[in-house]
Amino acid sequence: MKIAILPGDGIGPEIMAEAVRVLRALDLPGVELHDGLVGAAAWRVHGHPLPPETLALMHACDAILFGAVGDPACDGLERHLRPEQAVLGMRKELGLFANLRPAKVFPGLEAHSSLRPEVAGAIDLMIVRELNGDVYFGEKGMRTTSDGQREGYDIMSYNESEVRRIAHVAFRTALGRSGRLCSVDKANVLETSQLWRDVMIEVAADYPDVTLEHMYVDNAAMQLVRAPGKFDTIVTGNLFGDILSDQASMCVGSIGLLASASLGAEQTAFGTKGAYEPIHGSAPDIAGKGLANPVAMILSAAMMLRHSFGLEAEAARIEAAVASALNAGARGADLGGNMGTVAIGNAVLAAL
Amino acid sequence: MKIAILPGDGIGPEIMAEAVRVLRALDLPGVELHDGLVGAAAWRVHGHPLPPETLALMHACDAILFGAVGDPACDGLERHLRPEQAVLGMRKELGLFANLRPAKVFPGLEAHSSLRPEVAGAIDLMIVRELNGDVYFGEKGMRTTSDGQREGYDIMSYNESEVRRIAHVAFRTALGRSGRLCSVDKANVLETSQLWRDVMIEVAADYPDVTLEHMYVDNAAMQLVRAPGKFDTIVTGNLFGDILSDQASMCVGSIGLLASASLGAEQTAFGTKGAYEPIHGSAPDIAGKGLANPVAMILSAAMMLRHSFGLEAEAARIEAAVASALNAGARGADLGGNMGTVAIGNAVLAAL
Ligand SMILES: CC(C)[C@H](C(=O)O)[C@@H](O)C(=O)O
Ligand SMILES: CC(C)[C@H](C(=O)O)[C@@H](O)C(=O)O
Repeated sequence: MKIAILPGDGIGPEIMAEAVRVLRALDLPGVELHDGLVGAAAWRVHGHPLPPETLALMHACDAILFGAVGDPACDGLERHLRPEQAVLGMRKELGLFANLRPAKVFPGLEAHSSLRPEVAGAIDLMIVRELNGDVYFGEKGMRTTSDGQREGYDIMSYNESEVRRIAHVAFRTALGRSGRLCSVDKANVLETSQLWRDVMIEVAADYPDVTLEHMYVDNAAMQLVRAPGKFDTIVTGNLFGDILSDQASMCVGSIGLLASASLGAEQTAFGTKGAYEPIHGSAPDIAGKGLANPVAMILSAAMMLRHSFGLEAEAARIEAAVASALNAGARGADLGGNMGTVAIGNAVLAAL
Repeated sequence: MKIAILPGDGIGPEIMAEAVRVLRALDLPGVELHDGLVGAAAWRVHGHPLPPETLALMHACDAILFGAVGDPACDGLERHLRPEQAVLGMRKELGLFANLRPAKVFPGLEAHSSLRPEVAGAIDLMIVRELNGDVYFGEKGMRTTSDGQREGYDIMSYNESEVRRIAHVAFRTALGRSGRLCSVDKANVLETSQLWRDVMIEVAADYPDVTLEHMYVDNAAMQLVRAPGKFDTIVTGNLFGDILSDQASMCVGSIGLLASASLGAEQTAFGTKGAYEPIHGSAPDIAGKGLANPVAMILSAAMMLRHSFGLEAEAARIEAAVASALNAGARGADLGGNMGTVAIGNAVLAAL
C-alpha cells in the first residue's frame, strides 16, 4: 500500500504532518509513505508545479494524500506555472473524474455556522462533482474579433461517456445513502446541460431504488441556503460543483473541517486509486504559525483508507476520534478556540 | 412615458395587478400602460413565447414591467418555444446588458432568513450581472464525437467592449454606494475570466475613488454564506451572476421581496430604457390562488421609476411604503403571515 505524501504549500506541510501521525498511529501493515513536491514547493525546486518526478510518483502509488497548493509568490507567473495548475494537472493526468465532497455538521458545532443552528444541524449531504470535463478542460484561448478587440473564450462540453461514468458513481453513492439523488444543471440555457440531463435519465433506469430529481443551478444555490438539510446526494458538473461544494462546505461552519476524495477508474490491488485533499486552500496568511486546523487533512486520510484501501473500520475509527476530539473542545481559531495544529492532532490521537 | 405591462404566467398576472394599482395611485402625469403577452401566455395565443407583437411593443415603450414566465404545460416543448426563452430573447433583442439585483434585509425580517439574524441583518449589497454575453449567448449545440457519441457544447466568451460597458455600470454603481467593488470570476481556470479581470483593472483607472477587489467564484459563494454583510457592490458575468444573485437573494429571507432592473445603452426622453422584474419565478403551484407576495413586483415598479423615468422621489416613496407595510405586519405565507396578494397590495397602498 504505497501512499504519495504531497504536502504542497502554505499550511500544507503543517496539517500533513498531523495526518501522517494519525496514519502511523494506526500501525497498518504494509503501508509505505513516499514524499513528493507539488505546487509552489515543486516549482521552486523543479521550475514546474507538477514536475515529471511528482507525476511518476503519483502513478507509482496506490493513493495520494494531497495537502494544499498556492503561494502569493507565484501570482505573477504565467497561468500554467501557477501552483493551482498542479491540482488540475493531477486530476486530468490520473483520470480522477469523480470528486466526492461530504458536508455534515459535527455535533456540537452547529453554532459555528452562519446559518441558524437548526438549519445547519440538519446538513448531511454528499456532492459528487465531475472533475475531468466541462469548461475546465475544453479548448480555450484569447482571439481577436473582426473589429480588432481581444476576446477570451472557453469551450464547455460533455460527451455521453463522461456523463455516464459520473452518473454511475453518483447513483451508487445515493444507493449507499438515502436513495435520493439531485442532479444539478442549467438545461434551460446550456446544451451541455441538456445532454447531462438526458444521460442522467438514461442511467437512472439501472437504479430503480434511487429517486432522481433535477434542479437548475441557480435554484440549487438558493435551496442550499434555504434548506440545505433537504439534500442528500447531489451530482453536478465540474464548474457548478466547484461553486456549490464550496457554498455547502461553508454552511457547516468552517472549511477547516471538510475532506474530499478524487477517484478515477483505475483499480489497484487494494481499491480505487484516488487523491485525497482538504476542501480548503493553502492559507498563506497563517502558514508556518502552527495555527491551521488539521481536521480536514486528517479526515482526507480517513477517506483514503475507505476508498483506496477498503479499510472501512479504520476510516470510521479516525472519523470517530475526530468527532470526539471536536466535541471535547479541540478547536482552533477557526472555531473560536485557541488550540494549534499540533495540539488538535494530539487530541485526535488521544481519542483514537 | 409608455410602459409595457407584461404579466406573463403563473402568479405573474396577480402580482402585476398590485404593481399597477400602486403605479396608478401615484397619479403620474403622462403615464401610459400598454398590455402585452409574454411566456406561455403568448405561446398559447401566438405560438411563440416572445412573438413579434410583443417585441414591437417592447421596442415602442420607454420601459417594460415584466411579471414572470414559466408554465409546466410547456415542459415538453422544444427549448426555443419554452416560456423562459422570452426572458433571454428580450434581454438580447433590446440589448439589456446590465442586470441590477439589490439584496437587503427589510428591518424586522431578519428572523426569516435561514442565516443567523446578525448575519442576515448586515446584508446590503448590489449585484451587477452582465446579461448579454457569456456561455448564455455563445454558439451551442450537439455534435457527434469521432467515436460516435453525442457531445453537448456551449462556447463561453467575452470581448473587451462587452466587459468594459458592464464595468462602467458597476463602477458607477459602487460610486453611488460605499465605493467598494468586488469583481467575481474564475481567472485561475478560464480565459474568459482572465480577459474580464484585465478589463476590470483597466477601467478601474477611470474611477480612483472606487476600491476594486477580485474574488474567485467558488470563494464568493462561500463568503456569501459566511459574511454576506462584507459585500457592497459585486460585478460578475452572466452565468456566475445567475447563481450568486439567487444565492444572495435567498439570504434575505424570501425571494418574494426582491426586484431587478435590466438596463441597456438606449436612452429615452426620460432615462435609461429597461425591463423590471421580480427575481422569483412564476410559481405555478400557487398561481391563481391569490397567495403570491406582490412586493418584488411592486419594488420592480419602483426601480423602473428610478432608472427609466428619473423619478427618484416617487421610487423612494414606494420603497418606504413597502418597508412600512412589511414592518407593520403585512406578510404572506412566504413570511409566515396569512395575508394574500390583494391584502398586501392594500397595505402598501395605505402606507403610500
Ligand atoms: C484551484 C482550483 C483550480 C480548483 C478548482 O476550481 O477545481 C479548486 O477551487 C477546487 O475546487 O479544488
Ligand atoms: C430563466 C433563466 C433563463 C434566467 C437566467 O438564467 O438568466 C433566470 O434564472 C434569471 O436569472 O433571470
